[in-house]
Amino acid sequence: MSTSTGTRGVSVPTVPSAHPAEDTAQTATTLPGTDIAALLERGRTLSTPVLRAAVDRLAAPMDTVAAYHFGWIDAEGNPAEGDGGKAVRPALALLSAEAAGAAPEVGIPGAVAVELVHNFSLLHDDLMDGDEQRRHRDTVWKVHGPAQAILVGDALFALANELLLEIGTVEAGRATRRLTTASRKLIDGQAQDISYEHRERVTVEECLEMEGNKTGALLACAVSIGAVLGGADDETADTLEAYGYHLGLAFQAVDDLLGIWGDPVATGKQTWSDLRQRKKSLPVVAALAAGGPASERLAELLAADAKSNDFDSFSEEEFAVRAALIEEAGGREWTAQEARRQHTVAVEALGRVDMPETVRAQLTALADFVVVRKR
Amino acid sequence: MSTSTGTRGVSVPTVPSAHPAEDTAQTATTLPGTDIAALLERGRTLSTPVLRAAVDRLAAPMDTVAAYHFGWIDAEGNPAEGDGGKAVRPALALLSAEAAGAAPEVGIPGAVAVELVHNFSLLHDDLMDGDEQRRHRDTVWKVHGPAQAILVGDALFALANELLLEIGTVEAGRATRRLTTASRKLIDGQAQDISYEHRERVTVEECLEMEGNKTGALLACAVSIGAVLGGADDETADTLEAYGYHLGLAFQAVDDLLGIWGDPVATGKQTWSDLRQRKKSLPVVAALAAGGPASERLAELLAADAKSNDFDSFSEEEFAVRAALIEEAGGREWTAQEARRQHTVAVEALGRVDMPETVRAQLTALADFVVVRKR
Repeated sequence: MSTSTGTRGVSVPTVPSAHPAEDTAQTATTLPGTDIAALLERGRTLSTPVLRAAVDRLAAPMDTVAAYHFGWIDAEGNPAEGDGGKAVRPALALLSAEAAGAAPEVGIPGAVAVELVHNFSLLHDDLMDGDEQRRHRDTVWKVHGPAQAILVGDALFALANELLLEIGTVEAGRATRRLTTASRKLIDGQAQDISYEHRERVTVEECLEMEGNKTGALLACAVSIGAVLGGADDETADTLEAYGYHLGLAFQAVDDLLGIWGDPVATGKQTWSDLRQRKKSLPVVAALAAGGPASERLAELLAADAKSNDFDSFSEEEFAVRAALIEEAGGREWTAQEARRQHTVAVEALGRVDMPETVRAQLTALADFVVVRKR
Repeated sequence: MSTSTGTRGVSVPTVPSAHPAEDTAQTATTLPGTDIAALLERGRTLSTPVLRAAVDRLAAPMDTVAAYHFGWIDAEGNPAEGDGGKAVRPALALLSAEAAGAAPEVGIPGAVAVELVHNFSLLHDDLMDGDEQRRHRDTVWKVHGPAQAILVGDALFALANELLLEIGTVEAGRATRRLTTASRKLIDGQAQDISYEHRERVTVEECLEMEGNKTGALLACAVSIGAVLGGADDETADTLEAYGYHLGLAFQAVDDLLGIWGDPVATGKQTWSDLRQRKKSLPVVAALAAGGPASERLAELLAADAKSNDFDSFSEEEFAVRAALIEEAGGREWTAQEARRQHTVAVEALGRVDMPETVRAQLTALADFVVVRKR
């Protein structure tokens, strides 16, 4: 793995630089039909009007609070040009329908339902984790209070099921069941995440299981839901979910790198964001599991941090020391490799599904994008 | 309406004493097949093992937190003989299946799903409302913290849909859709309830709409879900829901009376519970809408209370004064009448559904029970 130019928060993660996936992505984006920006934009364009109409169903003031969360209005209620996030999930749900030979539009209710569940979890997780910022803006509980964050999260969760079930077909019932399974895993993952923060040691396996629940399960559902709505059988849906699940683990490994070494301007988070939150993310648990002097020194520091009363006033330098130890112990390198491993498994699963080659190329390109992104 | 023997919290609500429904209930419970205690017990006995198995699916520590919430263990994790509440909803769901000519067991997944949604809302509402006690015990957020209350609520909500959808039939999909609609109304109702607490005036109509959402919708679903699982058509299900909805409004009107004049030993709540929480419940809004000297004096006091810094240290006597004014302005009498009105509409809806007469008698007896209960 190439080394970054520094350990400051402004350095970029080194995952892609020595990584074949980046070359694939760069090649892929030049192929017809694998323009990532266009794919994400299509997902956003087709799903947003349906998402907005769904949110409009909410009773006041939940509709306003949800509109703030999605970035459609500011805290004063004025229209805003929101940063709605990367919108990887809607893009996947439309491709999912196409993978089953259906029109991309067949995947729209699935795309919207998955986005609703994703945002339900963001609203609740931000409150539980005490996160004050998301996508460069104050979080909902910070602006509208904890009760609204709970309520609107609940409402978006219910709305997701409502949208799918009102289609009224057997396929919609199957799609809702998959979404419900993914939602439960999402909740399990958040429960694990919270419990790990209070533990001194978390194994790499436990961390991967938690990340599979928190990120893999819903990405998996995004990749199967359009296909199920388009009539795909369970075996096809399961294989598509395998692609999505490992894509999610690759995505999360990159997220964990960005959470420590990401550029705050790009990510919208603080420098050393995950270290400030004492997150037992992959680079940390891998570094602690590695053994050796840097690993042991890191373990001592983190154990002392857990008991420290001054943690909140730590300087940039103190976090930089910890980040450097994680890197020295090999946690950064291991996580970058893990992103590549998961990317490989994801792309292999794609090979086991019979689908139009253009769709396969686009799903492959999305997998490449996920591991090279900087935000 | 007969007057109670006093305005202290230990007096019982006067709804039933001069009320034909009580006579009906007393007659009904002596008829074969309309033993209320047996009906409630059957619902509890058939649904609890399935509910416990469902809760066992939750990842640690959510399974333990949920077991505490349901009263199966105490705060230290030791087995407990919990007070699981009245269990009106499971009883209704089983009768609902029988109303459609199916075996009561067909309604079990519906009974459990409705109980899960009900308890999801209790977990979240107790946190949002800052309620420290429920069923004579500390609430989940008080014992296990706000994050667990949010998480376990979310998990129970997801579990409800999961249980129904894994049945895999068209009927199960229709049942889940009805449950989702009810859940959304439940959330709307809680949003209204919260917003009303910050308003000086709430109309009787607004209060009834809120209570229809918070209590009517899920009781309605309990009464249709078993029938839908048993193959009932939408018209039958809708009419059963009309019975359940008005039953819910009758139930809530009685709850509002108990919330001010209920016996704390029976209800497990503090004396003047709803007044302490400044709830704009039916007796309050009806008293404020009535006009006249007592109504005006009450309005002045409540307006001053809203701005008071000493509200939390109010004496029993100060709440008693407010309760007496509500009664003098006619709020207690109006609410008792409203319970009877809603009871009548509910029983009339029952008459429009073709069902076995024994089932009709039992549903009628349950409606009678709801308006005479003291807890």
